[in-house]
Amino acid sequence: MDILNNHNGFYIDLYELTMAQGFFYAGKHEEPAAYDYFFRDNPFGGGYVIFTGLWDLLKSLEHFHFSGDDIAYLKSQGFKKDFLDYLSSFRFTATINSVREGEIVFPLEPVLRVTGTMVECQLVETILLNYLNFESLIATKASRIRRIAGKRAVSDFGLRRAQGLGGLQASRAAIIGGVDATSNVLAGYAYGAQITGTLAHSWVQSFDDELTAFRQYANVFPENTVLLVDTYDSLKQGIPNAIRVGRELKEKGYQLKAIRLDSGDLAFLSKKARKMLDDAGLPDTKILVSNQLNEYVIRSLLEQGAPIDGFGVGTELITGKSTAALDGVYKLAMNNDEPKLKISDTFEKISLPGVKKVFRYFDDAGLFYADCIALEEETNPHRMHHPHEVAKKCHLEGMTKESLFHRVFENGAIVEATNDTQAIKQYASQRLARLPIEHQRFEMPHIYKVGLSDQLNNLRNQIVEKLRKTI
Amino acid sequence: MDILNNHNGFYIDLYELTMAQGFFYAGKHEEPAAYDYFFRDNPFGGGYVIFTGLWDLLKSLEHFHFSGDDIAYLKSQGFKKDFLDYLSSFRFTATINSVREGEIVFPLEPVLRVTGTMVECQLVETILLNYLNFESLIATKASRIRRIAGKRAVSDFGLRRAQGLGGLQASRAAIIGGVDATSNVLAGYAYGAQITGTLAHSWVQSFDDELTAFRQYANVFPENTVLLVDTYDSLKQGIPNAIRVGRELKEKGYQLKAIRLDSGDLAFLSKKARKMLDDAGLPDTKILVSNQLNEYVIRSLLEQGAPIDGFGVGTELITGKSTAALDGVYKLAMNNDEPKLKISDTFEKISLPGVKKVFRYFDDAGLFYADCIALEEETNPHRMHHPHEVAKKCHLEGMTKESLFHRVFENGAIVEATNDTQAIKQYASQRLARLPIEHQRFEMPHIYKVGLSDQLNNLRNQIVEKLRKTI
Repeated sequence: MDILNNHNGFYIDLYELTMAQGFFYAGKHEEPAAYDYFFRDNPFGGGYVIFTGLWDLLKSLEHFHFSGDDIAYLKSQGFKKDFLDYLSSFRFTATINSVREGEIVFPLEPVLRVTGTMVECQLVETILLNYLNFESLIATKASRIRRIAGKRAVSDFGLRRAQGLGGLQASRAAIIGGVDATSNVLAGYAYGAQITGTLAHSWVQSFDDELTAFRQYANVFPENTVLLVDTYDSLKQGIPNAIRVGRELKEKGYQLKAIRLDSGDLAFLSKKARKMLDDAGLPDTKILVSNQLNEYVIRSLLEQGAPIDGFGVGTELITGKSTAALDGVYKLAMNNDEPKLKISDTFEKISLPGVKKVFRYFDDAGLFYADCIALEEETNPHRMHHPHEVAKKCHLEGMTKESLFHRVFENGAIVEATNDTQAIKQYASQRLARLPIEHQRFEMPHIYKVGLSDQLNNLRNQIVEKLRKTI
Repeated sequence: MDILNNHNGFYIDLYELTMAQGFFYAGKHEEPAAYDYFFRDNPFGGGYVIFTGLWDLLKSLEHFHFSGDDIAYLKSQGFKKDFLDYLSSFRFTATINSVREGEIVFPLEPVLRVTGTMVECQLVETILLNYLNFESLIATKASRIRRIAGKRAVSDFGLRRAQGLGGLQASRAAIIGGVDATSNVLAGYAYGAQITGTLAHSWVQSFDDELTAFRQYANVFPENTVLLVDTYDSLKQGIPNAIRVGRELKEKGYQLKAIRLDSGDLAFLSKKARKMLDDAGLPDTKILVSNQLNEYVIRSLLEQGAPIDGFGVGTELITGKSTAALDGVYKLAMNNDEPKLKISDTFEKISLPGVKKVFRYFDDAGLFYADCIALEEETNPHRMHHPHEVAKKCHLEGMTKESLFHRVFENGAIVEATNDTQAIKQYASQRLARLPIEHQRFEMPHIYKVGLSDQLNNLRNQIVEKLRKTI
């Protein structure tokens, strides 16, 4: 839809614009500010998130603007002339520091930080949350499916059940999270991913009988024949017909690449199918399955010893079922060089003040041990505090550490970020391999340590105390 | 993203293209065909679906094409020259008959029918399912929230938690389903919807204190001041400060439009707030609430007598929680003038053969009574059969009826469909008012009658019998 390109500043909640106008007339619009992007809960009851969506966000911010049409529309909605004049030449020139796309991140820590004027920080909130929350959710879901499938192939089959045009970002995220291939041709084209797909039931139905349908397909694609065997009856008809075509291909020097089971009990049918294929001299023909799969169904199939070589995962992957959305938020942390926080009756929900960054600490085996949130000027925190359990501390002295933040956007342009989806995917995979397995399990995963440096902890407590006195 | 416009034929599952190439070399690509779009289960455990997404789909089909870049990419993926030559000049010229956008529809009945060549019908499957499944899901969710909220205002606040660029379609669907306003400025611009939004916590935090923040906002927007009162403490500070500003506005001849509660117990707080506002002489200041709302939470709030005037609904509306996706499918019904169906071990999952349409029957009060699926040539079915319980029949003689299908697309262009979102919304609302309330309740709704005409029932049974004999 053209409209998404031509009006990219309009992919915004109205209140960003009303606040911008308010800041403008209150004379605050050019005050320096800092905002943090972070989330509070891991999705899927899991132990981590793969940070995804950064490139799409930065690319969009390079072009962030309001067109003449946009300005006219805002005028019709009651916005004022001086502000609209300001908005019509608005460009996003704030600085963004962020963890790398594909990084493994955890609740409460800043994942990305925007520093700039009050108005430019505020105006990008909606698009930032929209892109980062969604892609991170789907990449994380994909990584769970990837892990449980082991070395077996996993394909994204989700486009038909994806959320409208969000399906392109969903497939991108699924690739970064670890799927091997996608049915989404545009995602293959855009992200250099392997694309996958052969035939549907309609192919089989459109011929007089299944055997003819299979033969015709093998005739056109002798090197890439994957036959969907459940149009009529998998055991009685589909697999026997596939075997017949498999043998005919063999005679011509080809090989039936795979069959696909798409209904019925996939554990039972895959075992039967494997034996039938082996007995027929087609041991190299693979068995692929699809139909309402998720990480739990795949785990169950494999626990039952189902001889499955690949999984096509659709709805549950592409919609991030059953977490509706990553709960990422974007909170003011500094305004006019004053650290700011959002207070709450619940101590866990108080946001962290000041311009911050994150250090990651490693154990002796090089695995992730803990993340410490510190103020920008800190170089070497000695210990960290639990974010809301006051007595809990953790010593960090002498441990190997890494600063996770990188400057990715400056002066209106991307400075250090990659659009190489395959490289992001590889990075995510390497980083996930360094996350101890107990944080990756599905049931009650071990909680990864995230804490506050002494300095940040003191700052937060001082401000909270002061604010509570005023109430 | 430009890529979605420049490659609209690529928003497709690969297997549509491999099948198209197969049909091409099997000489079947220009054979006449018919496909049906239908779904099997109502979402949210409800009793109906609002059909939505038609205009977006048709608009996309008018432009459906493969660019030179697309063709080059497909060549690199092993597609063959003759087929690619054919594809490079491909345009979608099939005929689409459909129920009106905004119509109330039910499981198993065809909602939309595509008749054209085998290849053109097949190639649009993915985009059709993507658009129609998603928008119909969200419109249906919105209608549930709309119904339970009664005359109170409902706003879509979901963009930040929407699925990437799918958020535009989601807001469109939410509008059609019945929300009064949206925070999504692009949706307001594109669909003529009311937009809504005032201020966030960051506004309040950026001033030295809450009272100053409220005053500054009221100063810039005296006619549209809605104050978010939970940044520090709703009862002790937020509401008293809002009242002070409300009185100051009153003195200047304005009125504090509303306060918004965004955390804490919304039933408890709204009652307290109402009393405080009334006691302060601000009885016309409304109370709006937000924070993880859905139709059940809203029902509970109202059952408790919470004096709430409007609801801002985000994540759960915009993601269609907790149904991940509408399970709409697209099945071959005719090829080369032969009726086709997809058989299954489960009788319910057998698709319906032939070129079909749908009649809707009305009771004496003009309410929806039953839908009868018939063959295209039928004019007046006398009775209908339950789709899979053999003995169940329903007499239709003498009842008022309406044919639900309209020709909406022909010769590459839209012929009878509207892009007037407000008109579609109004139609949906009028039609929903004619659906008996027992089909609209949330718990175990009464199942709406959908059946097969004598002719269709006979045709289906004959084909099933014949196919089962061959297995």
